[in-house]
Amino acid sequence: MEYTFSAKLQNLKPSAIREIFKSLSDPSIIAFAAGNPSPESFPVEELAAISAQIYKENPISALQYSITEGYPPLRNAIAERIKRKFNIGRDFDTTIVVSGGTQGIELAAKVLCNEGDAVICEDPTFIGALNSFRSNGIEVVGVPSDGGVIDPEKLERVIAATPRAKMLYLIPTFHNPMGTTMPMSTRRAIYDICRRHKILILEDNPYGELRFAGEDVPTLKSIDDDGIVIYCSSFSKILSAGIRVGYVCAPEPVIQKMVVAKQVEDVHTNIFFQMVCYRYMTEYDLDGHIKSICDIYRRKSSLMLNALDEYMPKSVKFTRPQGGLFVWCTLPDGIELDKVVKAALERKVAIVPGTAFNCDTSKPSKCFRLNYSTPTDEQIPEGVRLLADAIRSV
Amino acid sequence: MEYTFSAKLQNLKPSAIREIFKSLSDPSIIAFAAGNPSPESFPVEELAAISAQIYKENPISALQYSITEGYPPLRNAIAERIKRKFNIGRDFDTTIVVSGGTQGIELAAKVLCNEGDAVICEDPTFIGALNSFRSNGIEVVGVPSDGGVIDPEKLERVIAATPRAKMLYLIPTFHNPMGTTMPMSTRRAIYDICRRHKILILEDNPYGELRFAGEDVPTLKSIDDDGIVIYCSSFSKILSAGIRVGYVCAPEPVIQKMVVAKQVEDVHTNIFFQMVCYRYMTEYDLDGHIKSICDIYRRKSSLMLNALDEYMPKSVKFTRPQGGLFVWCTLPDGIELDKVVKAALERKVAIVPGTAFNCDTSKPSKCFRLNYSTPTDEQIPEGVRLLADAIRSV
Repeated sequence: MEYTFSAKLQNLKPSAIREIFKSLSDPSIIAFAAGNPSPESFPVEELAAISAQIYKENPISALQYSITEGYPPLRNAIAERIKRKFNIGRDFDTTIVVSGGTQGIELAAKVLCNEGDAVICEDPTFIGALNSFRSNGIEVVGVPSDGGVIDPEKLERVIAATPRAKMLYLIPTFHNPMGTTMPMSTRRAIYDICRRHKILILEDNPYGELRFAGEDVPTLKSIDDDGIVIYCSSFSKILSAGIRVGYVCAPEPVIQKMVVAKQVEDVHTNIFFQMVCYRYMTEYDLDGHIKSICDIYRRKSSLMLNALDEYMPKSVKFTRPQGGLFVWCTLPDGIELDKVVKAALERKVAIVPGTAFNCDTSKPSKCFRLNYSTPTDEQIPEGVRLLADAIRSV
Repeated sequence: MEYTFSAKLQNLKPSAIREIFKSLSDPSIIAFAAGNPSPESFPVEELAAISAQIYKENPISALQYSITEGYPPLRNAIAERIKRKFNIGRDFDTTIVVSGGTQGIELAAKVLCNEGDAVICEDPTFIGALNSFRSNGIEVVGVPSDGGVIDPEKLERVIAATPRAKMLYLIPTFHNPMGTTMPMSTRRAIYDICRRHKILILEDNPYGELRFAGEDVPTLKSIDDDGIVIYCSSFSKILSAGIRVGYVCAPEPVIQKMVVAKQVEDVHTNIFFQMVCYRYMTEYDLDGHIKSICDIYRRKSSLMLNALDEYMPKSVKFTRPQGGLFVWCTLPDGIELDKVVKAALERKVAIVPGTAFNCDTSKPSKCFRLNYSTPTDEQIPEGVRLLADAIRSV
């Protein structure tokens, strides 16, 4: 039997990161290529205690079918928290639970864009989002981002040249892969442009609470008095990634359609762990826990930045993140990225080539992404030393 | 701000069942409209013990990101079990974990069908599948099913008249909503027709193991020597629905594309409960547990069928299921379904009108679906008595 696939899936390849992930099953590899939260960041004992309580007190609700929008107490707790702490949510907004922030991105794309429509993206950006758009037959149009800064004039030109643009996808805070944060002035300028052109903004904020240096920059959603921002975040980086619990805050009409689309994707998100998240939020100190995660990442990012300062050829540039999980490195002209990736892997260090994050995958890149949350404290300087050696070798 | 939605989502309404579900939050309502497994069917103590063990023995793997295909030991255990017990899976097949059988249906539709393609369905059929096809811009074409039997000649005519037909969606065993089982001769005839016309079969089998009377009928997948069947099933009805763990067994090239599509939908299924399912399968007696669930449903279906025999006007016909969760009732000419649904609800009994399951939702129906797994043993005869009273009143 020969199988023919839908046009939208035909050319979609498993992500380069996933393929590199497979090499990570080799425990001797230093995993700078991953994007996993640190194992230290999971509050195992508390989650175990909460789970035992749920089995004791309301096991049937935790194991039975539930409603698509999510566990109502959790929805309320999230909406209350993001309003109180970040001024996210207006009267026209609603918050629902989704199966990780990624599902929020995919649902927004599916309900708002027809095949052939376009989503404008920072270039480079998160490959999962790019593939989510592509898997819905949506065109991805890049607007260059320089350390988290998009030139508003360039954005206007891209919008003018893309009549089928429906949405702008952004990771304004602790960008994946760049690790950079968009300044408030840029956010404000982008917001005004999108409002004028009736382009919705899909704000992806999985790392926003992981700030270990500098001052908070308000989210785009926090200034959204016009109902043009769809805000996605999750518990993946602040509680557990494996439980697949995220949330979306967006205007009610958009949420209504996303709920219909979610219903046919997975009916609802694992209800047991929705209850776990709710209890953790209300019975434990989530903010204190997030502080302790930030302490871990402050330490790990310093280990990486210090090692980069010490070992890297001066011609290699890198970002200095104030939060999140990633450092973005740029090679000087004349050094081929592919050779560096290969030489690093020969030295048992896995990195992600920047090409994986390009809107146009055929475009070359001089950059690569490093992650400091996954490797151990001992692996970080050793891996950077080996990586610098790899770069010098090519 | 005015929002415009994708054409495929624009006309998709939340399912009628979902709307009826909301009435179910009233605890005084007798819930014949639901499709929930019986709360008695959840092995709470065992799941609690397993969960505690996981937190103790491998919490990090259970809380960290995992791979899209699913927890390898669970995939192997499922593949081994369905091969051993049901002869499902050939060398060209692979089994992956999905977030409930529904996700398997949606992924198959997404990767195999372009917008404007058609899926042929038994008419009536599961509304979740119908909406899953519609949400991908796929046309739904019905072929009449009479108590689980499709006339092969009619199917051939529908295929001939539907040049863009890519797939046939079937629930051959303990059909939702009809409760009926397709005879082996019909399965064989349908399989041969689909093979000749190169139409893939999407076999949805969430209830197959819930047989409490009669003899097993082999699945279509068990005779699939040609690689034309995509088989979806889940743990929802045999362990817990709320955990959202299902699986798909299908030819490797199809699975590869489904994995790419799943990756952008939810990255992977909740890994903690994948590990729970694996441990339950290997450390406890899943087959024995399923037997005990069948005992519950044998009792509950008898309560309902006996009450239908006793209270219902003889002009009302109903199916006599040998397994699964549903009884399908047909009103005589001259009694309006809408009035019956309303009169029942006035008597605090919720049923699902057959119109909800029609491929053509504008087509009228004389049928309604009853569920016996959700209501208590006491509610079943009382609810049927009130329902019969409602029918006589209109």
